[in-house]
Amino acid sequence: MQPLRVGLCGLGTVAQGVLEILSRNAALIARRAGRPIVVTQVASRRLRPGIDLHGASFSTDLLKLARDPEIDVLVELIGGDGLALETMRAALEAGKPVVSGNKAAIARHGDELLAIARQHAAPFLFEAAVAGGIPILGSLTRGLAANDVRSLAGIINGTSNFILTGMSDRGEDFASALAEAQRLGYAEADPTFDVEGVDAAHKLTILAALAFGTGFRFEGVYTEGISRITPEDIEYAKRLGYRIKQLGIARRSSAGVELRVHPTLVPDTHLLANVNGVMNAVLVNGDATGSTLYYGAGAGSLPSASAVVSDLIEVARGTAIDCGAAPRHEGAPEGGAPATVPIADSVSAYYLRIPSLDRPGVFARVATLLSEREISIESALQRAQAIHAESQNAWVPIVIVTQPVPERVVHDALDAVQALPDVVGDVVRIRVEEFGDG
Amino acid sequence: MQPLRVGLCGLGTVAQGVLEILSRNAALIARRAGRPIVVTQVASRRLRPGIDLHGASFSTDLLKLARDPEIDVLVELIGGDGLALETMRAALEAGKPVVSGNKAAIARHGDELLAIARQHAAPFLFEAAVAGGIPILGSLTRGLAANDVRSLAGIINGTSNFILTGMSDRGEDFASALAEAQRLGYAEADPTFDVEGVDAAHKLTILAALAFGTGFRFEGVYTEGISRITPEDIEYAKRLGYRIKQLGIARRSSAGVELRVHPTLVPDTHLLANVNGVMNAVLVNGDATGSTLYYGAGAGSLPSASAVVSDLIEVARGTAIDCGAAPRHEGAPEGGAPATVPIADSVSAYYLRIPSLDRPGVFARVATLLSEREISIESALQRAQAIHAESQNAWVPIVIVTQPVPERVVHDALDAVQALPDVVGDVVRIRVEEFGDG
Repeated sequence: MQPLRVGLCGLGTVAQGVLEILSRNAALIARRAGRPIVVTQVASRRLRPGIDLHGASFSTDLLKLARDPEIDVLVELIGGDGLALETMRAALEAGKPVVSGNKAAIARHGDELLAIARQHAAPFLFEAAVAGGIPILGSLTRGLAANDVRSLAGIINGTSNFILTGMSDRGEDFASALAEAQRLGYAEADPTFDVEGVDAAHKLTILAALAFGTGFRFEGVYTEGISRITPEDIEYAKRLGYRIKQLGIARRSSAGVELRVHPTLVPDTHLLANVNGVMNAVLVNGDATGSTLYYGAGAGSLPSASAVVSDLIEVARGTAIDCGAAPRHEGAPEGGAPATVPIADSVSAYYLRIPSLDRPGVFARVATLLSEREISIESALQRAQAIHAESQNAWVPIVIVTQPVPERVVHDALDAVQALPDVVGDVVRIRVEEFGDG
Repeated sequence: MQPLRVGLCGLGTVAQGVLEILSRNAALIARRAGRPIVVTQVASRRLRPGIDLHGASFSTDLLKLARDPEIDVLVELIGGDGLALETMRAALEAGKPVVSGNKAAIARHGDELLAIARQHAAPFLFEAAVAGGIPILGSLTRGLAANDVRSLAGIINGTSNFILTGMSDRGEDFASALAEAQRLGYAEADPTFDVEGVDAAHKLTILAALAFGTGFRFEGVYTEGISRITPEDIEYAKRLGYRIKQLGIARRSSAGVELRVHPTLVPDTHLLANVNGVMNAVLVNGDATGSTLYYGAGAGSLPSASAVVSDLIEVARGTAIDCGAAPRHEGAPEGGAPATVPIADSVSAYYLRIPSLDRPGVFARVATLLSEREISIESALQRAQAIHAESQNAWVPIVIVTQPVPERVVHDALDAVQALPDVVGDVVRIRVEEFGDG
């Protein structure tokens, strides 16, 4: 059979991985795809020396490649939402299938791109955009296709997970763990994008779009980073039976869909609590399957390239599907997407650390303020043994885990707690997920 | 569009789950599949009263249903390899797609069934045959399709995992944990099939066939059950940092493919060690992705039905693939499947428990016998604190974990150890997997 001729845009680490896998696993891939898959042309803004193009021709004109009738499919691995976006549009408008790992562009322009793809009957696939080598998008759109997905939660930023793992394993503070991540190449010189949750929000946007038919609602994602997590909170969380993980969470309710990225206490016996270092995992709760979990390398040249090539194999054998065919859930308006629930309307359990003077009655006063707002206490370290720097002061932290409570009620309660004369520092609050009902 | 008309064979719990999911998620499934999916006919040896057929007609003639031109796809959920096998053959020979959850029939007759399917261009899909609601076959054949899979290891029998979890959590012996599983409906009155590893061997056969292109080699699976695992071994394993799990393991080597089901010590920090109760998980090591893991409910009406319906959705949208297109790996003979490696040629680390007289020099004598055969000791509990019944005797167990060593060498060494006058009971050996290289 005729080989599938691939035009590859970009020559970064993932693109190099694609060239490597297609070369070394060529026979295996041809058998699975029903025909050979060959990169015939590569386009990049510049040719870096020393890269083996495995026989492909090279140019610097990305848009020309996107429209070239001599290629059957475009792989877009440039990144960003400028030229990359234009290139994807051009290929799809020419009726050419596109495979992309560009999470930023898809999170922001996924609706438009899928609409163009549908209009021109050109598959648009992007398994590599979320969680690297884990086939999570395929699992959502195919393996779990019979399910009404209720919620999903994922460790989908390897940099944040590496930093939190370092803080947990070695008692380091955020700055030291970040420096270690930078030294090992797991964090950028400017780590904002990863540690403040923007990268995870991109991926969560894509997961939710495929799971719920929300459309791509990047603007609707509530995002909190990990830079204010302290070793003290990690230690108290451990004593209460939790690990702190940076999670992306999407959950349906009658009001719409919640989308949020934030540090989260996870029970230490839960599988997500045991996903460490740069590894990723996504928990999906479907109405038929119950909880399922998908784990693997979330980034890296070969894992991400594995996802790109698996999409190419679907294109080669003609079995790609329309990723825009996710069902609208019942609460959605006719023909439209369900609302994104504002974070103030979300419900969550909370870990609270309240720096207080070490004198009688403080815990009772705090408990009363919570109780007056119908916030129940799930567990507490009353007069927690102070650790680290706090032990040198005449105050102790009160550490409490609440039962689930609406966000706005917690805000109100914490304003009242913060105003107590016994409270001598900023109250820390971190959300808690028990995953009891998935 | 025309609905996909499903003929459903069988009316057991999974079949009832299929009827339920297709009914309650009908709109969602039609959107994902591109057309409605409707069970129009049901056939079973007898109609049990009280089952809602959701409007389907009923008959007792399975073979007639398989050949009926009024159905577009046959779902086979009868089980066994008698009439079920005949029914599948009949439908495929009529060019009709078949979706099955019949692991026993597929493990034993998968080559034949896939050959008929290919000959008649009829998709043959069986996601429900392995690990219930976990989309593991789809992940192997689609999401990981770019990978040369090196190995896989799975907790693929929920009954065994439930029993071992009970023994580990509550210190119960095998008989008590089995009785509890039977009381809760997780184990049959005759539990042989599950606890002796036959069910896991069926599933491992299917996983390996799709991952490696070995063909379906059920006869080549080495199988050891869990009925001889004791609370003592579980406790010593814990002290050494391991959990005991019943694993199905498939691994490629230059000699061919190893297929084995047996109790295994797994490091307690590994995700597989934290898969408890009736849950299943499969670890897959690909050359591009590295380790990935898939977790979820391994059985049950709705999880297994979710897998059946996801296969039906592939059939409905025309995107099903040929599961027989797994690549032959490089060591395979031309046009043939790679050899199955005999268990005697396999290599594994071992946990050894050696009941010995409590006198000086015994450990040294054992260590010498191992050393003479170039078996290195990874860790040991020398003069392990005796637990349970053993503490009443004048002997103590020597507990050793070896480094990886060929099976036949271990056999030879254990013959020598067993013959020592200091050794006063049967030496126990259980394999150990570190998953260091996947």
